[in-house]
Amino acid sequence: MHDVAAAAGVSQATVSLVLNSASGSRFSEDTRKRVRDAVTQLGYRTNAHAKTLREGVAGMIGFIGDSVATTPFAGAIIEGAQQRAWEDGLLLLTVNTGGDKELEAASLDAMLSYRVAGVVYAAMYHRELDVPDALTGVRAVVLNSQDRAGRVPSVAPDEVKGGYSATRRLLKAGHSRVGLINIESLESGLPAAVGRYDGYCTALQEAGLEVDPDLVRFGTGGEEDGYKYAMELLTGPKPPTAIFCANDRGAWGAYQAVSDLHLSIPQDVSIVGFDNQATLAPFLRPGLTTFELPFVAMGRRAVELILQEAEPDGRVELMDCPLVERKSVTHPKEMP
Amino acid sequence: MHDVAAAAGVSQATVSLVLNSASGSRFSEDTRKRVRDAVTQLGYRTNAHAKTLREGVAGMIGFIGDSVATTPFAGAIIEGAQQRAWEDGLLLLTVNTGGDKELEAASLDAMLSYRVAGVVYAAMYHRELDVPDALTGVRAVVLNSQDRAGRVPSVAPDEVKGGYSATRRLLKAGHSRVGLINIESLESGLPAAVGRYDGYCTALQEAGLEVDPDLVRFGTGGEEDGYKYAMELLTGPKPPTAIFCANDRGAWGAYQAVSDLHLSIPQDVSIVGFDNQATLAPFLRPGLTTFELPFVAMGRRAVELILQEAEPDGRVELMDCPLVERKSVTHPKEMP
Repeated sequence: MHDVAAAAGVSQATVSLVLNSASGSRFSEDTRKRVRDAVTQLGYRTNAHAKTLREGVAGMIGFIGDSVATTPFAGAIIEGAQQRAWEDGLLLLTVNTGGDKELEAASLDAMLSYRVAGVVYAAMYHRELDVPDALTGVRAVVLNSQDRAGRVPSVAPDEVKGGYSATRRLLKAGHSRVGLINIESLESGLPAAVGRYDGYCTALQEAGLEVDPDLVRFGTGGEEDGYKYAMELLTGPKPPTAIFCANDRGAWGAYQAVSDLHLSIPQDVSIVGFDNQATLAPFLRPGLTTFELPFVAMGRRAVELILQEAEPDGRVELMDCPLVERKSVTHPKEMP
Repeated sequence: MHDVAAAAGVSQATVSLVLNSASGSRFSEDTRKRVRDAVTQLGYRTNAHAKTLREGVAGMIGFIGDSVATTPFAGAIIEGAQQRAWEDGLLLLTVNTGGDKELEAASLDAMLSYRVAGVVYAAMYHRELDVPDALTGVRAVVLNSQDRAGRVPSVAPDEVKGGYSATRRLLKAGHSRVGLINIESLESGLPAAVGRYDGYCTALQEAGLEVDPDLVRFGTGGEEDGYKYAMELLTGPKPPTAIFCANDRGAWGAYQAVSDLHLSIPQDVSIVGFDNQATLAPFLRPGLTTFELPFVAMGRRAVELILQEAEPDGRVELMDCPLVERKSVTHPKEMP
């Protein structure tokens, strides 16, 4: 990695971030290209990987997902996991169960019979789940979710910090009336809904602001709810000057409401999203400032825990959701 | 399958279509639920699958994709392939190479050392590609692309028929000035661009209409081009009353152009898209009438060819892209 950094003229940290991040969007295309070129040119790989190439036999890591392969964007988790496994010369044996418990049990059986080095147990969206008993007989990591029983280590996005950072982004621009359109009720117990809400509250309180229930709405994650609740907030008696939409789909709906009200983003309303959906966020007009779910980095980290033979201690490792800055945030109108 | 059909009160063809299609959108949610319930209730599975469950060891099929896992929506190909493999008691060993030829060669080596029943070689988008030599030593199928050398059987979408059906949909609604915003130039040689264009021309000619070059634009598949070219077409001297956008992203751009011109879809302009992108097409206002890329069915078919030990004869099997009817097409204004 030292040589790659030198060849690319960047720091080792930059090399690591560019190789480990889905979009690497904090770096210019030029920087990313230089790092990738240096990797190719130097044939950078770990010793274990080189050994596999020499000896021609790869070990395997099992990857069981409920619907990861068919959920847009979450597939990047598989890419991250496979990439990291391959750096140590292992391949990924994947099963997408669609939630079928019998298929899950049988494929776990098969994976164990193939003597996989471990199993990554991945979920389509962040929640608490029950890990199958068979997983306790093998090195295992829960990915993009948390083991309810706390037996298996988990890797998941830091939802609280994400919600906090999103709200801070709007407060720092000078907004003091910041609405929230959440993706689910707090009663759902969904870590993404509860955590992003907690982060929102903490950021407001830190700034000396009250959480105003009139500025908070709980939807179901669809763009229709983003539309409906943005419309309610913006036509209310004391409309917000900024809205944190806890997912990009909701933000899309909010954009449509703003347009129907003949208002402009960001001049009249600033919007921050969450998810950085690749087919949506960059293409909204204006481009959506949002936070990225670190799918590639999470996939890599889960495999790393297996390779490091981490203790089955039920720890939960939370990973940062980086800010992706675009054009949907500015100062509120009242400000100079 | 006979018993499932009887229990669900539908035909065997319906059972097959519901189980094999990504959205099964031609059937009501009620029908789909009845079929799924019958499958669960009867524990429907093939003999080979039952044998694996009994004996506890699964064979494997290799799956090598360039970027399939990380391309939104194309992941459904993996779901289809794995689903079909599992019906015969096999698991899928997947590698996402990101186009890295050395990783591809090493993982093929590993797959062969694990004695996989065959290898599916999948591409992110439909094109002609060069199959690695090592694949000729194993049963192999090219998926979502075509083997340039014609040695290995391929499974790909029927682009010509798709373009034809999309244009027919607009002609049948009464339109005679039908524009086309294509996803790439014809010189690109991209089957999706060339095929959808050919289908467009054939449909017009069959209807006794000339292909008017003033109504055809070639973009690069982004929504910006959809916007730009829809704007050009609709503000031209003889604007079309309907536009076939050869991908949904382009259609999204066209929607924005129509909105900026203070026109309405479908009253002033009818639009047909292509791809049925799950996070986009249903959420446009109005919902986009489009054609679905049969990812699940293609994944299933590729595995089926391996299981059937199809001859390595370079055949190309083209699969239908079904129409997904929503609200973006109506009669032209001149019509009663």
